Amino acid sequence: MTGELKETKKDDENVVYIGTKPFMNYVTSVIMQFTKNANKEVIVKARGKFISRAVDVVEVARKRFLVNQIEIKHIKIDSEEFENKEGRKVNVSTIEINLVKK
Amino acid sequence: MTGELKETKKDDENVVYIGTKPFMNYVTSVIMQFTKNANKEVIVKARGKFISRAVDVVEVARKRFLVNQIEIKHIKIDSEEFENKEGRKVNVSTIEINLVKK
Repeated sequence: MTGELKETKKDDENVVYIGTKPFMNYVTSVIMQFTKNANKEVIVKARGKFISRAVDVVEVARKRFLVNQIEIKHIKIDSEEFENKEGRKVNVSTIEINLVKK
Repeated sequence: MTGELKETKKDDENVVYIGTKPFMNYVTSVIMQFTKNANKEVIVKARGKFISRAVDVVEVARKRFLVNQIEIKHIKIDSEEFENKEGRKVNVSTIEINLVKK
């Protein structure tokens, strides 16, 4: 288990799930959500080892690209239980970073 | 660069820096800060790839050990610039998770 989230949910249009794609793909997604789609709020989500990457994505987006345009509204951490391939229950940590236009 | 923080600051007694030690060391540190030292607030800090680990530590501490005793007061993410061995300026993301007694 890598902890990567599937990117299938249709109604989560303002959510960017962080996984194994090239880093800048996610930064671009965040920027596009704010500019092209004119969203007022974008949520960056990640699980497990991708949590560090989610923080990197947010930091690059807000400090290098959308300078003084967005801010962090709220950060939530949690954990989920799921069964791995061997049928064992394991916990994975999650993060949700809510970004809003200034 | 691993992004690991040095654990040298004497006046940061209620701070737990997450690095490469065994996982449960950090969970134990958080619990000890709250119980033995009777601190009302403990701050878990990490940089770079250790951010995911910091979230894991907090989740295990509050959901498996200090159940219903502590809560997350605030989470802050940021980034710092530093020079690596080759003299290049690189950015590293940081996280601070403030835990308080309920």
